[in-house]
Amino acid sequence: MEESIFPSKEEEHNMSQTSLSHSRPVVALLTDFGLADGDVGVMKGVIATIAPDLHIIDITHEVAPQNIPSGAWILATAYRYFPENTVFVCVVDPGVGSSRKAIALHAGDWFFVGPDNGLFSYVLAEQIDQSAVVLSNPAYHLPQVSATFHGRDIFAPSGAHLARGVPLTELGTQIDPATLQRVDIGPPARRGRHIDAHIVYVDRFGNLISDIPVSLVPELFSSLAAEQRAQIIFPTLAVVVDRSSHFFAESPDDGKPFIYADSSGYVGIAVRNGNAASALGAEIGTLITYVNSNM
Amino acid sequence: MEESIFPSKEEEHNMSQTSLSHSRPVVALLTDFGLADGDVGVMKGVIATIAPDLHIIDITHEVAPQNIPSGAWILATAYRYFPENTVFVCVVDPGVGSSRKAIALHAGDWFFVGPDNGLFSYVLAEQIDQSAVVLSNPAYHLPQVSATFHGRDIFAPSGAHLARGVPLTELGTQIDPATLQRVDIGPPARRGRHIDAHIVYVDRFGNLISDIPVSLVPELFSSLAAEQRAQIIFPTLAVVVDRSSHFFAESPDDGKPFIYADSSGYVGIAVRNGNAASALGAEIGTLITYVNSNM
Amino acid sequence: MEESIFPSKEEEHNMSQTSLSHSRPVVALLTDFGLADGDVGVMKGVIATIAPDLHIIDITHEVAPQNIPSGAWILATAYRYFPENTVFVCVVDPGVGSSRKAIALHAGDWFFVGPDNGLFSYVLAEQIDQSAVVLSNPAYHLPQVSATFHGRDIFAPSGAHLARGVPLTELGTQIDPATLQRVDIGPPARRGRHIDAHIVYVDRFGNLISDIPVSLVPELFSSLAAEQRAQIIFPTLAVVVDRSSHFFAESPDDGKPFIYADSSGYVGIAVRNGNAASALGAEIGTLITYVNSNM
Repeated sequence: MEESIFPSKEEEHNMSQTSLSHSRPVVALLTDFGLADGDVGVMKGVIATIAPDLHIIDITHEVAPQNIPSGAWILATAYRYFPENTVFVCVVDPGVGSSRKAIALHAGDWFFVGPDNGLFSYVLAEQIDQSAVVLSNPAYHLPQVSATFHGRDIFAPSGAHLARGVPLTELGTQIDPATLQRVDIGPPARRGRHIDAHIVYVDRFGNLISDIPVSLVPELFSSLAAEQRAQIIFPTLAVVVDRSSHFFAESPDDGKPFIYADSSGYVGIAVRNGNAASALGAEIGTLITYVNSNM
Repeated sequence: MEESIFPSKEEEHNMSQTSLSHSRPVVALLTDFGLADGDVGVMKGVIATIAPDLHIIDITHEVAPQNIPSGAWILATAYRYFPENTVFVCVVDPGVGSSRKAIALHAGDWFFVGPDNGLFSYVLAEQIDQSAVVLSNPAYHLPQVSATFHGRDIFAPSGAHLARGVPLTELGTQIDPATLQRVDIGPPARRGRHIDAHIVYVDRFGNLISDIPVSLVPELFSSLAAEQRAQIIFPTLAVVVDRSSHFFAESPDDGKPFIYADSSGYVGIAVRNGNAASALGAEIGTLITYVNSNM
Repeated sequence: MEESIFPSKEEEHNMSQTSLSHSRPVVALLTDFGLADGDVGVMKGVIATIAPDLHIIDITHEVAPQNIPSGAWILATAYRYFPENTVFVCVVDPGVGSSRKAIALHAGDWFFVGPDNGLFSYVLAEQIDQSAVVLSNPAYHLPQVSATFHGRDIFAPSGAHLARGVPLTELGTQIDPATLQRVDIGPPARRGRHIDAHIVYVDRFGNLISDIPVSLVPELFSSLAAEQRAQIIFPTLAVVVDRSSHFFAESPDDGKPFIYADSSGYVGIAVRNGNAASALGAEIGTLITYVNSNM
């Protein structure tokens, strides 16, 4: 927990030899604010006031309202694609104004700022190197903090200061990352030929994404006929999907669902030129059982 | 009106000692264009062509179509959070192509570019230090000006030139800011225990925002029981809201509306985990009467 | 095809005398991904990792899903407004994972990266100076390429490398631009007083945009009475529009359609304060016949 969050002297020297010393730090935003109100713009105004040379990148602002598991999953599929030292300011915050903590986190090569409500569950599960603080230092908040818009008043300014080089430990009191809130996430475990899992995300096309990492089921994309590789059973919906496909254009355009490897790295269920979520009646949280057909 | 819009020699010298001289100027955009067409992207292309090092920030592009009061209110809640010298290019412009003026405005520490139709009403009411020009200098427009897309052809290029340092008075003929168009905005006045006011904005959650500044009604968030502090009457809807809350998580989750201090600085009416606008049948423009219950 | 895609020594020297040498290259994005999932954000993360100082600008991410002609048209109306050397990364890609080629293109003063499916049809028709490569060099892709998200794995990294100065020919094998896929686009030809054309875009207001360049029909905006200039016939809908207007505020607010010069440079049909697409029952692809009434 006492690790330095910024490069060592030697590392800094090396960095100054490369383009990194000239590059702009990135702040990436993920919220459920939508884009209709001016809230996201206001957060960016706050960030640009504190640190004009940052590169501000939107991940999305259309997380399903107050849906922490969904926000956590989108963040999980995105953060590895950002430059090291990127500061992710994430606000899906149904408990704003209550006693939930406001936190900043250093995990792996990145920083994360937001409410302590499970939004960083995947990051905490995946990155071993961790340290965290409660955002208790008002010097890095706006002078007036409202009860309902901590994105603007606490998270954006704390994130901007972090990105311009303020050490994590300046932002508040250190806490043990093990005490942070988590939502129930995978990866699910195999029981013989079976994996009990569930749907964790429904994308814009209605594709259903499970919490089964593709790496856990190599047989699913073997050379066997697609019908003989595996099944996904939706027990609560009395549906069985027993066909798989390497990519969408490979699957017959017959309105029937198939299993595929989503680009997020997780197993998905789709209907070509259709909406699997509405076709199957499935949603975030729906239970599934994966069955390996050739064991 | 003859004030210099850029820093004095002495100020410039001071600025060059700080990080400001290295920082990127900000252009902030607010329109009702939506994001489906390419129009917002085209405006950004124009800006980047004129001034490649600007930081372009979206406030929102989803102002209710042609709704000037709504655009004016969103701008009012946002502009103070942006760096000084930010240029706000604002296009909610039902009269494009008619005789309405195209203007640029220096007010307080910021610049504003857009149609003269009331969009800058709050800014003009709130910032004493003002100067304005009609955008009559074609040298700062695109070579061809269309009849229907002044955002691209006049406002974006004028704003970009302003942000890269062209003086306001170069963009056109000075006019008296007192002659600019205004929409009817608050703040409303007290009549004894009463304040006649109205709803000025409905946010994405259906929360109703009034034009009563929170600072005008300190009793509303006093230590009295929430039911004894104040009422908001919707005379045209025959509804009385007589409960208030410091923040959403404090309010009972019972589907009933309550009064709260919106993060914009104005009094709002919300339903926890619900939509106050549809629950009450209220919308932008609905009249309300605030009554202080403990006077 | 053997042209140099980057400035000559002499040109480079000249550029270094101007602000261009200090300016940030632009990558502009156009997709049908929507903004609800994190996909666009992930592409930006990839770009910022490769080239932190780029300016990333969104054209739109709401192209009608998998609608290549619509994406091609939006790109056509936008690209000329961007700085020279802008790299357009465009992903409307129903054939992802199939045998369709991934390409990069230098056309006129700009670069274009995306699938070879017709998305660049207008650019190829309008810009004479062309060279193209198939994106066959894996050194400029992400280390792992998925079957379904080439935007992230191939197009974004190739575009970012291009923008930071990697020569086009490094990205893969050169191909003859004449062999690239095209969608059927205009401009339509006159037959005496008639022009057979069709609707190529429906904007957010329901305005119908045709593929008739305004420059082809100067009579339409002559000094004749609006009813005597021209007609647009919708043969499949049994509708005739015989009124034109220079701008929206000029047209009577009577719910009837009129012909106007769209800011894109093409002839459009609109209903003032109304939706022409739903009023007329027209959509992308609907046939129209333009008739010059005063020949």
